[in-house]
Amino acid sequence: MAPMARAAVMIRPGKIEIQEFPLPRLEDGAILLRVEMCGICGTDKHTWHGETKQYAGTPTESDTPYPIIPGHEIIGTAVEVNDRRGPRLDYDGEPVRVGDRLALCPDVVCGACYACRHTFAYPWCEHLKGYGNAFTSTEPPHLLGGWAEYLYVLPNAFVYHVPEELPTHIAVMVELMAVSYNLDKLKEFFTLSGEGLATGDTVVVQGAGPMGICHIIKARMMGAGDIVATDLSDYRLSLAKAFGADHVLNVTRTSERERVDLVRSLTPGRGADVVVECVGKAEVVVEGLEMLRKGGIYVEAGNFVESGEVTLSPHRHLCAKNVRLIGMTNHPFTGYTPSMKMMLRTAHLFPYDRFVSHVFPLAQTEAALLRSMEPDTMKVVIAPWATG
Amino acid sequence: MAPMARAAVMIRPGKIEIQEFPLPRLEDGAILLRVEMCGICGTDKHTWHGETKQYAGTPTESDTPYPIIPGHEIIGTAVEVNDRRGPRLDYDGEPVRVGDRLALCPDVVCGACYACRHTFAYPWCEHLKGYGNAFTSTEPPHLLGGWAEYLYVLPNAFVYHVPEELPTHIAVMVELMAVSYNLDKLKEFFTLSGEGLATGDTVVVQGAGPMGICHIIKARMMGAGDIVATDLSDYRLSLAKAFGADHVLNVTRTSERERVDLVRSLTPGRGADVVVECVGKAEVVVEGLEMLRKGGIYVEAGNFVESGEVTLSPHRHLCAKNVRLIGMTNHPFTGYTPSMKMMLRTAHLFPYDRFVSHVFPLAQTEAALLRSMEPDTMKVVIAPWATG
Amino acid sequence: MAPMARAAVMIRPGKIEIQEFPLPRLEDGAILLRVEMCGICGTDKHTWHGETKQYAGTPTESDTPYPIIPGHEIIGTAVEVNDRRGPRLDYDGEPVRVGDRLALCPDVVCGACYACRHTFAYPWCEHLKGYGNAFTSTEPPHLLGGWAEYLYVLPNAFVYHVPEELPTHIAVMVELMAVSYNLDKLKEFFTLSGEGLATGDTVVVQGAGPMGICHIIKARMMGAGDIVATDLSDYRLSLAKAFGADHVLNVTRTSERERVDLVRSLTPGRGADVVVECVGKAEVVVEGLEMLRKGGIYVEAGNFVESGEVTLSPHRHLCAKNVRLIGMTNHPFTGYTPSMKMMLRTAHLFPYDRFVSHVFPLAQTEAALLRSMEPDTMKVVIAPWATG
Amino acid sequence: MAPMARAAVMIRPGKIEIQEFPLPRLEDGAILLRVEMCGICGTDKHTWHGETKQYAGTPTESDTPYPIIPGHEIIGTAVEVNDRRGPRLDYDGEPVRVGDRLALCPDVVCGACYACRHTFAYPWCEHLKGYGNAFTSTEPPHLLGGWAEYLYVLPNAFVYHVPEELPTHIAVMVELMAVSYNLDKLKEFFTLSGEGLATGDTVVVQGAGPMGICHIIKARMMGAGDIVATDLSDYRLSLAKAFGADHVLNVTRTSERERVDLVRSLTPGRGADVVVECVGKAEVVVEGLEMLRKGGIYVEAGNFVESGEVTLSPHRHLCAKNVRLIGMTNHPFTGYTPSMKMMLRTAHLFPYDRFVSHVFPLAQTEAALLRSMEPDTMKVVIAPWATG
Repeated sequence: MAPMARAAVMIRPGKIEIQEFPLPRLEDGAILLRVEMCGICGTDKHTWHGETKQYAGTPTESDTPYPIIPGHEIIGTAVEVNDRRGPRLDYDGEPVRVGDRLALCPDVVCGACYACRHTFAYPWCEHLKGYGNAFTSTEPPHLLGGWAEYLYVLPNAFVYHVPEELPTHIAVMVELMAVSYNLDKLKEFFTLSGEGLATGDTVVVQGAGPMGICHIIKARMMGAGDIVATDLSDYRLSLAKAFGADHVLNVTRTSERERVDLVRSLTPGRGADVVVECVGKAEVVVEGLEMLRKGGIYVEAGNFVESGEVTLSPHRHLCAKNVRLIGMTNHPFTGYTPSMKMMLRTAHLFPYDRFVSHVFPLAQTEAALLRSMEPDTMKVVIAPWATG
Repeated sequence: MAPMARAAVMIRPGKIEIQEFPLPRLEDGAILLRVEMCGICGTDKHTWHGETKQYAGTPTESDTPYPIIPGHEIIGTAVEVNDRRGPRLDYDGEPVRVGDRLALCPDVVCGACYACRHTFAYPWCEHLKGYGNAFTSTEPPHLLGGWAEYLYVLPNAFVYHVPEELPTHIAVMVELMAVSYNLDKLKEFFTLSGEGLATGDTVVVQGAGPMGICHIIKARMMGAGDIVATDLSDYRLSLAKAFGADHVLNVTRTSERERVDLVRSLTPGRGADVVVECVGKAEVVVEGLEMLRKGGIYVEAGNFVESGEVTLSPHRHLCAKNVRLIGMTNHPFTGYTPSMKMMLRTAHLFPYDRFVSHVFPLAQTEAALLRSMEPDTMKVVIAPWATG
Repeated sequence: MAPMARAAVMIRPGKIEIQEFPLPRLEDGAILLRVEMCGICGTDKHTWHGETKQYAGTPTESDTPYPIIPGHEIIGTAVEVNDRRGPRLDYDGEPVRVGDRLALCPDVVCGACYACRHTFAYPWCEHLKGYGNAFTSTEPPHLLGGWAEYLYVLPNAFVYHVPEELPTHIAVMVELMAVSYNLDKLKEFFTLSGEGLATGDTVVVQGAGPMGICHIIKARMMGAGDIVATDLSDYRLSLAKAFGADHVLNVTRTSERERVDLVRSLTPGRGADVVVECVGKAEVVVEGLEMLRKGGIYVEAGNFVESGEVTLSPHRHLCAKNVRLIGMTNHPFTGYTPSMKMMLRTAHLFPYDRFVSHVFPLAQTEAALLRSMEPDTMKVVIAPWATG
Repeated sequence: MAPMARAAVMIRPGKIEIQEFPLPRLEDGAILLRVEMCGICGTDKHTWHGETKQYAGTPTESDTPYPIIPGHEIIGTAVEVNDRRGPRLDYDGEPVRVGDRLALCPDVVCGACYACRHTFAYPWCEHLKGYGNAFTSTEPPHLLGGWAEYLYVLPNAFVYHVPEELPTHIAVMVELMAVSYNLDKLKEFFTLSGEGLATGDTVVVQGAGPMGICHIIKARMMGAGDIVATDLSDYRLSLAKAFGADHVLNVTRTSERERVDLVRSLTPGRGADVVVECVGKAEVVVEGLEMLRKGGIYVEAGNFVESGEVTLSPHRHLCAKNVRLIGMTNHPFTGYTPSMKMMLRTAHLFPYDRFVSHVFPLAQTEAALLRSMEPDTMKVVIAPWATG
């Protein structure tokens, strides 16, 4: 009998089962990855709740094709590499060999469509397929999500070598650190005349979950001034402080007015230079815009999944504010390797060890997912080979 | 008796009177301008209707201090210059002399506040005063609006020499051509990887009034590809075509779906690269965002005055769309001189003569204002010294 | 016997022969192109003279592997397409079919090396191979240069559909029009505060050969103000004027001081905003820098081949000048399709018909090359199927 | 008799005398500053050696008008403020009061010339006057250089409040930290596609004197990866390491080839992303360019004074390298306040205490200057009121 791999399958909203799949035969350029650790992301929680509309209004608008094996924040070890037709290269041009520890970029692009040919580093591909989101587990090669013992790495999927000194439970942050390239992206919009993120700028991060924490780290790393974080969990806000926030505001104990006033008081009267939305709820957008200075930049990154509507004034919130509002999905392919190097370089500055708050074995995936929805968690991960 | 100047005073919403004011004595650096021509702007129409909230949510939030002398698109001739303490320079450093024909930048800044010291070329001044908007006519020197025979040019107001070859009825466009620097501003956000306005890009201009026409001209001047204009007036759309639009859509005879589809069909399926909002109504924003390609740039420039609210989906319209939404009020001080030079240079390419559709003498200012609200007008101007 | 194709082979510097090669069998994704027209480029002239060092000091430093079939400005018609394994797409994602007229990007990249993965649209590939430059004609498939009846289009070479309305003798400009994306690239460096190419800016183009002419066209298309061209040929300078230069300076009849003074006089005393070097001689660099305003931008694009040294003062020419000096080789893959669309759109504005000054049949390739070195030529092309 | 102030006057190259000047009467907006500390800058050393040509080839080309009171890195305390005609504001819009500790921007601009009106934050003023450089001490108000007990702050000179927690001997770094905005300026040229300074980039700083050290600090603060410093002094290189350099290279014990190879080895084969020239000698430019990766950015900042010529290959060093070479003089007015805040914020990360290596009283100014030329010094300062 063929060797089998166990995987956690979300067969429909609210229902996860452990299933077995045959280990696939590798096509040219494919890799078989032993999954060491895989994060649970906010998107996975949406999928659990049946909130499945992604990329609405774009050529890649999609719904989740249940059953799927979720999981896209993946660190694993190559146990087989098909390099018959030439070396299988990582994103940086280095050959992948059996035994290498790798991070995976979950977004797989065709490289040949109009979007691939006219956009750099972001997966705006017309044929985009996302690990843990876009593949039905019923079709071979089945193992295209990270909540599983093994993962099939497609020939055109991008992988990155994890530096030896970087522990897996820190390396598992890398996908979110790449998401925090939202702030690097802002440099494309920078001028000394008040555009973009400047050295010493005041940055507000709405939402201190894993994605918010990574933006706090990145803002600090890039030379931000005051960093303010908002959340409803004191636990998360305490971590926000540990990771570099100067001011934290619990939204359950402050009013919108108080929060806006605090931000304005830090910048005498002006408002934040940058606000990053990492909550993923439509209603926080207006508060974020109110916090922003004239000409400030608002990064709408949290509403990756359809989450409702918001009402605002084009005069007050957009035109008069001279807002620069930048919607950002996904992360750049180029963000992985530098992120891992910077995590090593700044190991003494940030308590990376505290980022993963809970580790669950594969058999307890559903419990892990439910646990991750509690406010007293940061990143919850599946370690498929861990023993519960 | 002191010599007097007549002016059209808006004493309250819906009421204009011709009044007389004494010609002021000039402080150091001031200029007395004989007004040759002054445009009627959309903002003036709002003021007429009592829609007076400007710069809402910013440090310069203001209401109109009736009575005022409206008018801020001003071309005049210097009849007196106080240069006792040194030459009175125009914005480009050239001395102003009696007899010089000048354009005025209506936005007067202090040059010393935090905003003036940290922003380039845009009047984000904390003490901003706008000609024709911010000055009560009851206070000396009274003549601080363009619908008048004479204008008092403050020492720190910026003026620009009008090239001799440029007729006054074309030069009067210059303020709006400077507003169309919205498109030059987009170059600050440009990268070859699909950010900002690229050569050959598809540009939609929502609204084909004077401001929309100037954006059409500028887009064409800067190397746009297809230009699409929308409006409810066939007259205005025919001018849009004459000034360079390739496609025009009358919103009274097409549905939103048809308009969005037309734009998408021009860009096989993708949507416009740039959409500029020149309508000034809250409700057009969602249509504009739907027309936009993923990663396209939306310029919210029309809602200069508070005009209501709009409801949108942060996921669909901002995040998934990867929108770049740029709010823009005002225009750069640096936009006047190059605009006038470019109008001369492109005199054979654009029918500038058709921009001013109606000229009224000062005595008929109220009639002029009412006329300007009709869909079969383009720019209506006051020529204070014209005989009716 | 297999069908054969004739080609002009440069077997060593100063020696061209017409040879015959078998028509190749197409691998998956390959195209056989009937060459309609192919330009003679300055680089080809260098190769003729044995000046063969390209990309010196970079990972792709190379020498010409004689014998080669030169020619890289190629328009042809697909006579065979191998699309067995799926449609062969052009750069924009459209399928290529037999009978389609195509432009070729001569720079072929691997798409997988570090440079390919970290640079957008430019062929900085570590394994770069250039049609007409990098392939020895002795090795199959032989036909990898444009001075031939047929061209073998590699599976990963980029092609672009030529719009039906665009005549071949104008379409053949497209590679150089893509080179003129040097000016679009400058927009990445643009801010309103005097960085990059602004609307109305004064632009100097050093050298009015084909590359200079394309930069003049592009500068005008993008909204330049005064354009100045320098050259030693009155013929070329007269074409420069026809294509949009306002001022032309024959370097054989003016001194460097006179040229610098002319440029300064146009910009009262300041110097040009942008200078583009399209001569390809080391010694013109200092003159160009002297012409530049403080903070102006100098595009070093002409010295594509090693051409000697220049001596300058780091204080005067770089630091005090606050120069922005941008070296540019190659052109962006994304520049072809918009260039062809813009050539159509501006057909009434530029005398594109005059760009190709001489057409030679394949048999007279050597004569064509010698002719192209005369100052009274603009673009000289080979039309392989023309009868002499 | 009027109260007098002592000052160190450089009466000609190589000759410094202590002279006395009457304390000036303050015009409107002027401030009298008690100088607490003033740095000795490389420019002062050039002036001592009679190397006095600054801004060569620009409208502000100048020679030193001996005798002068040198000194432009100035921290002082306001002892008198003329605010009769309204509050005297600092650059950020805050009123200046007697007793306030202030940093001075030495570059005084007119605010009204073409350059002032078209450039943001940099003193490209046509009438630029630099404290400690441009004013002859023989003319009133005499005290326009920092090597003196008192300084006359002109009404239009920019001052900045020093945060109370920041000691004077650290605050005195602020002018050079503002110079290190060279790296912030690079963000204007940034795109994710390999332009400008990215997170994790390899940065080389040529020259580890005070200016080099500040660039090392700033690079680290902004998220650089490997930082390499070169110098001829082991003392300075040890400080470079203490301030954040990962690799240091003593140019007296390594060859150019070895240094270039080291840089390339750090970036497998590619070269540095950014090289900043802080040596101020013409001959280091070629080495810096050789260290740079294709498309990397070279900041020519050190040759603030005419220092000779360099010979390079336009093909190899500019065109093929696709270099972005940015000349930078001066520093932005906007760089002072954020720099001081960031110095406070990063007090635990950088040994700021070690920046000032030697403090001299005014009477020993000449000794101080000579000492500052020794390789075992970092910043040497004059504390005018110190007792020797």
